[in-house]
Amino acid sequence: MPEHTKYLLSENDIPKDWYNIQADLPFEMPPVLHPGTKQPVGPTDLAPLFPMELIKQEVSKERWIEIPEPVREVYRLWRPSPLYRAHRLEKALQTPAKIFYKYEGVSPAGSHKPNTAVAQVFYNKLEGTKRIATETGAGQWGSALALACQLFDIECKVYMVRISYDQKPYRRYMMETWGAKVVASPSKDTNSGRAMLAQDPNCNGSLGLAISEAVEDVVTNPVPSKYSLGSVLNHVLMHQTVIGLETIKQLELAGAEPDVLVGCIGGGSNFGGFAFPFLPAKLKDKNNKLRIVAIEPAAAPSLTRGLYAYDYGDLSMLTPLIKMFTLGHGFIPAPIHAGGLRYHGMAAQIGELYRHGYIEARAVQQRATFEAGVMFARTEGILPAPESAHAIRGAIDEALKCREEGVSRTIVFNLSGHGHFDLTSYDKYLNGKIEDYVLPDEEIRKAQEALPVV
Amino acid sequence: MPEHTKYLLSENDIPKDWYNIQADLPFEMPPVLHPGTKQPVGPTDLAPLFPMELIKQEVSKERWIEIPEPVREVYRLWRPSPLYRAHRLEKALQTPAKIFYKYEGVSPAGSHKPNTAVAQVFYNKLEGTKRIATETGAGQWGSALALACQLFDIECKVYMVRISYDQKPYRRYMMETWGAKVVASPSKDTNSGRAMLAQDPNCNGSLGLAISEAVEDVVTNPVPSKYSLGSVLNHVLMHQTVIGLETIKQLELAGAEPDVLVGCIGGGSNFGGFAFPFLPAKLKDKNNKLRIVAIEPAAAPSLTRGLYAYDYGDLSMLTPLIKMFTLGHGFIPAPIHAGGLRYHGMAAQIGELYRHGYIEARAVQQRATFEAGVMFARTEGILPAPESAHAIRGAIDEALKCREEGVSRTIVFNLSGHGHFDLTSYDKYLNGKIEDYVLPDEEIRKAQEALPVV
Repeated sequence: MPEHTKYLLSENDIPKDWYNIQADLPFEMPPVLHPGTKQPVGPTDLAPLFPMELIKQEVSKERWIEIPEPVREVYRLWRPSPLYRAHRLEKALQTPAKIFYKYEGVSPAGSHKPNTAVAQVFYNKLEGTKRIATETGAGQWGSALALACQLFDIECKVYMVRISYDQKPYRRYMMETWGAKVVASPSKDTNSGRAMLAQDPNCNGSLGLAISEAVEDVVTNPVPSKYSLGSVLNHVLMHQTVIGLETIKQLELAGAEPDVLVGCIGGGSNFGGFAFPFLPAKLKDKNNKLRIVAIEPAAAPSLTRGLYAYDYGDLSMLTPLIKMFTLGHGFIPAPIHAGGLRYHGMAAQIGELYRHGYIEARAVQQRATFEAGVMFARTEGILPAPESAHAIRGAIDEALKCREEGVSRTIVFNLSGHGHFDLTSYDKYLNGKIEDYVLPDEEIRKAQEALPVV
Repeated sequence: MPEHTKYLLSENDIPKDWYNIQADLPFEMPPVLHPGTKQPVGPTDLAPLFPMELIKQEVSKERWIEIPEPVREVYRLWRPSPLYRAHRLEKALQTPAKIFYKYEGVSPAGSHKPNTAVAQVFYNKLEGTKRIATETGAGQWGSALALACQLFDIECKVYMVRISYDQKPYRRYMMETWGAKVVASPSKDTNSGRAMLAQDPNCNGSLGLAISEAVEDVVTNPVPSKYSLGSVLNHVLMHQTVIGLETIKQLELAGAEPDVLVGCIGGGSNFGGFAFPFLPAKLKDKNNKLRIVAIEPAAAPSLTRGLYAYDYGDLSMLTPLIKMFTLGHGFIPAPIHAGGLRYHGMAAQIGELYRHGYIEARAVQQRATFEAGVMFARTEGILPAPESAHAIRGAIDEALKCREEGVSRTIVFNLSGHGHFDLTSYDKYLNGKIEDYVLPDEEIRKAQEALPVV
């Protein structure tokens, strides 16, 4: 009998609580500020955007927050997700390392995003929300929210970044099949959109602008609407901790103890959800040997090259100010194919953990990432999302280090989604048409000049 | 604690043997004939196309054929596949029926096809094959074979029906990412292809023609090549019995006994693989209450409107003659979106079982099928392949009958794959652009005039 390939859990093993890292952080988080007054925001400031339960979760210091049964019931459609031992990848790399990956691509939307979408929509339903608006870049978040809204019978409007709207029609069709209304951003439906279209009718859009549109939509729409964000915020990362909590149980089943955790990072939600449940021991003892490595794209290197400062989450400066690692809210990353990682900022919790030395960060280039993605597809079978291929690149590099050093380590990474809707980028890679982007310091410096004075 | 949503098995529960229905058939199968001599074929006739082990399996009467460990090792990448209880669909239908579905879309290629691709490639590898050629319509089979060839390090060439090659580039990129060489059929690489191009340079191609090209390729290629077929043949259906064998175990876990089994049917492989393991009791006692229903598209109704006769598997009449239900090898089905069901013939075993009254068949129209697919996506989350949506339609109709009759029955269907690469067809459906096809008797009669005289 060979060692297992997959480590599965039963539905009873779906976590009953989310893990709230806020309870264990050995430092205070800087307050979130109101974009107008620049004073710390209170619940009432956020109430137009979010249901009260999510606002409470955003600031809660309870270690465990119960997952409502209707949310777990939806989770059962795909959770617990499998943990794989990458036997074939290890063999191809001729590494003494043991490589495991947690696979979140089994959700109907194909990524980890539904973990929080379902929770957010549930609380909205409970508080009477009839309609939710959001933005989406590559479409992973939009389709997760469309699915969740469909399951809880809530109207869903998605502002999809124009370039993705045009280039990724499949993602749009998916959202529409789940009943969402999708428009290209910039759109004619908001002031932010119209202003941009007046400036540049052919504007490709950006995530920052799409957020502005969605936020403006919910505060002006006659139907009681709320906004929903797919990453960055504390409650979003917390909902994603089901990933790490399951992984811990599965590694126990495998009799394995991780030496290195690797995840890709854009806004921080799959990385946080995967890594946070492993952190308590390290938060108590910084010398704990577990290394936690975030892999970001060289084209949007907020952790490795961003500034630690208060900044807006969106282009039009409508959102509250968060103290975070940021490239500047006006920064538009190069059009890399990992659209889900093209964001100027970074979850505040991740930033603080990085700043305090609990997690590491590395930036990788696009070609090396696709090389890793193709190698993975050809050994493990699964076609990874370009975002997730960043984590694969990181894991492969760690495994190659093991080979060089002749040391066996246990490497665990989060494979956040599949790449079924990203196949044109694989085609480009195979035909030598994928480029690396060298980001001049000057460009970052310029974008950061517009950082707000707080 | 609510009832389970998924019934999972561990890797140890992956079947150790395939079930060979040939052992239990209470009738003799008509012999397969040589296309030239019209005499029964022997192993040597087939040796240019298939490795000897598969030829043996094709005619074996052993009830159980052991699954080689290297094949089971690859199966572990996604098997056992989950069995779901469709709680949400039942609720939406307000039916007293219990609906279960086996989900084969969890394979890396997104359908049941790798179950046989992996087995076929393994035996080829064992017997020294360096290269395999095949055809593909919608791309499900081609991608399964590409994946399997990649995992066993065999060169793979796929003749992809021109219209799919143009309309489904994602499927092609997937095959290429797994290392296959893909050309549009008709191609310039074979006499069959060149002849067709000379006649009609803009020919859309057909599955029958693509088979001709692949078969011609393997017998003329200087590199030792074999051919591989994704459906119809006995050994292919047998490899797929892992589906039904797992389903039986999972239904036991669920404490459920099926009243009706439903599957979609084109060449017959997912249907056979799903249904055959349930058949022994019924083969012994025809009055056994289990109903087994095959759902075919009204545009390619080989069981419900085809002739029972000897026919070729391909357009150019290169393949052996099989006694089967056929619309005629020259029949080109309307361009429905369930490309995997657009075939003129039907697996001989299925045909015999149908003829002898062990299974039922129904043809459904395209719009009703997409209606079922969208309803399924909006309740169960999973976006089904248009092929699989035929099975959903069948299961929903059975469940509605239960509602009308006020009877609870247990309906189990096979969801053979996801529809991630078929989203343009969903877009068309949502925009009212999907058509039904009424197939005139005259058209079938005409196609069948060319049936060979045996």
